[in-house]
Amino acid sequence: MKTYKIALLPGDGIGRDVTAAAWAVLEKAARLNGFSLDATSYPWSCDYYLENGCMMPADGIETLRSFDAILLGAVGWPRKVPDSVSLHGLLLPIRKAFVQYANIRPHRLLPGVQGPLRSDGFDILCIRENTEGEYSGAGGRVHQGTDSEVAVETSIFTRKGVERILRFGFEQARARRGKLASVTKSNAQKYSMVFWDEVTQRLSAEYPDVEVTSYHIDAMAARMVMAPDSLDVVVASNLFGDILTDLGAAIQGGLGFAASANINPDRSAPSMFEPVHGSAPDIADLGIANPIAAIWSGAMMLEHFGETAAAAKVMASIEATTARGIGAIPGKDKTDAITASVLSALG
Amino acid sequence: MKTYKIALLPGDGIGRDVTAAAWAVLEKAARLNGFSLDATSYPWSCDYYLENGCMMPADGIETLRSFDAILLGAVGWPRKVPDSVSLHGLLLPIRKAFVQYANIRPHRLLPGVQGPLRSDGFDILCIRENTEGEYSGAGGRVHQGTDSEVAVETSIFTRKGVERILRFGFEQARARRGKLASVTKSNAQKYSMVFWDEVTQRLSAEYPDVEVTSYHIDAMAARMVMAPDSLDVVVASNLFGDILTDLGAAIQGGLGFAASANINPDRSAPSMFEPVHGSAPDIADLGIANPIAAIWSGAMMLEHFGETAAAAKVMASIEATTARGIGAIPGKDKTDAITASVLSALG
Ligand SMILES: CC(C)[C@H](C(=O)O)[C@@H](O)C(=O)O
Ligand SMILES: CC(C)[C@H](C(=O)O)[C@@H](O)C(=O)O
Repeated sequence: MKTYKIALLPGDGIGRDVTAAAWAVLEKAARLNGFSLDATSYPWSCDYYLENGCMMPADGIETLRSFDAILLGAVGWPRKVPDSVSLHGLLLPIRKAFVQYANIRPHRLLPGVQGPLRSDGFDILCIRENTEGEYSGAGGRVHQGTDSEVAVETSIFTRKGVERILRFGFEQARARRGKLASVTKSNAQKYSMVFWDEVTQRLSAEYPDVEVTSYHIDAMAARMVMAPDSLDVVVASNLFGDILTDLGAAIQGGLGFAASANINPDRSAPSMFEPVHGSAPDIADLGIANPIAAIWSGAMMLEHFGETAAAAKVMASIEATTARGIGAIPGKDKTDAITASVLSALG
Repeated sequence: MKTYKIALLPGDGIGRDVTAAAWAVLEKAARLNGFSLDATSYPWSCDYYLENGCMMPADGIETLRSFDAILLGAVGWPRKVPDSVSLHGLLLPIRKAFVQYANIRPHRLLPGVQGPLRSDGFDILCIRENTEGEYSGAGGRVHQGTDSEVAVETSIFTRKGVERILRFGFEQARARRGKLASVTKSNAQKYSMVFWDEVTQRLSAEYPDVEVTSYHIDAMAARMVMAPDSLDVVVASNLFGDILTDLGAAIQGGLGFAASANINPDRSAPSMFEPVHGSAPDIADLGIANPIAAIWSGAMMLEHFGETAAAAKVMASIEATTARGIGAIPGKDKTDAITASVLSALG
């Protein structure tokens, strides 16, 4: 029997609840579909930091490298450990070390979920560059604490980095409805974003079957609210993708429904699957976190393994659950009740 | 009789139609309220560029300096002149030369206007830093055209620049409902945005009556869609403010309703008033541009002059117009019909 080795990183706060829920669903889906999932769980988190002085051991990345995939809950608990430490000590290093350059986030309304928009006919796949750009971490501050202080933060875009994420976007568009929206701000950022636009233009010749349109980030943010049904695949830089995917989560009814995959398309290292939401310390341990985003992220993991039947079954079970109104209204149902419903829909 | 000298810059495309409409309303409002407006119009635009090789004459800025305010339509016509030339040749130099560091944009639904959100009870004032940050124009490209190409774009934040926009935000919050949202991304941009957060923290001690909260840009974008009624004044950097104000325009029903003021709070140079929308070449000269954003921007100019009665009268006339359904549905009414309705509501 085919076995996939999964590293579980429940992390902080509700990350623990939703990872447990997702795991129960994934294991059952595997069993029903003739493969198995073998989990090893690691306690790396802010609590781990408080005990050990680091978010993960020095060989953490090497430990993770041997797995087929990573399932992550959420990282961060600002009152215990500053985000700048926790995120830069666990989540972000994994994305970079494993060259998970494509962060994929689907945005559509699940049945039974009422979003904030009057319109509900949209199905968007956002693809966010996940390793460089505005989150390169390059910068500094001079004359700190004085009136003359200046802070600079430098966005760094490499041809390799831009080309590979755009290619990934073109491929995804080709596999969907053939429309790619590339998001920049080239009228105001004339180095980085003009460069991105040029690469988009050049690559478009190789994908004559894909209709590519460039949008400014401000116009795209408005479009996601005014005309989300006009969009298919949206590809954007690290920062722009970060913003657009929270907006995507909002229009799909909230972070409880927003799944994501950090993909290494070359499969030279494990990919990582995580809900978009954070650790939500205010509701940690109350048993009321919505596990749907985590379960959906797990379905994306099965899809990544090529287990498409099992992935489709998990998605159908999520949809059957929300269609019955369970887990469809933020805060209404308990984590366990939602998980139980998905499990029973699985058969 | 008090007279204000106004430089009119209709600019490109529908900028011409909406500026003419706004001017008719403002002139009548002045006449009815005991002051006068004295206009000088300049043809600076992309057409001007095609004839003269520049967006404005070399002494353009000096010419504008003697006015009490500038009323601008829209700049840009990409098929005639690249945005990077037209915007950097007219709009952006004015904002910077006249230290119009506060770009103010109100977001609320006019009566009769149906926005894309189910919820309609919001009244947000966005304040965007308008002179530095992510649009500083600093950067470059190396190994251009080769596989090793790297493009960098540097955001530059000065203490003076950050402090003055935040102070402006605190003052505006104090004059409204006492709530200030400061928007950064300090968990991923640890130089520029951590600096902004620190200045926000320090200044908050001087404004104990203002409740200030820091949000990440991604969370704020989601909040503007999920819970816009929770917001009062929002202050953000040049890029973040740019994105949030297009989103604000979207939730208020579209760019046809989004007004803005580029303010020099020290009054050491003229401020500039302009609708958020662009020149919309596709509908130029069809007489169907919605002049409401431009008229509203004109009302902000009267407010800036301290002509509050006249400003209130213009706003009431806009509201009476949209409440009757005129100009309330994008694309339905002609520019002239909307303008006539506002004029007649003025009395
Ligand atoms: C927590 C934060 C660093 C992270 C990011 O910006 O990448 C999050 O917002 C996300 O979208 O995954
Ligand atoms: C046209 C462009 C340079 C401008 C900006 O980003 O400042 C516009 O988007 C705006 O919001 O005023």
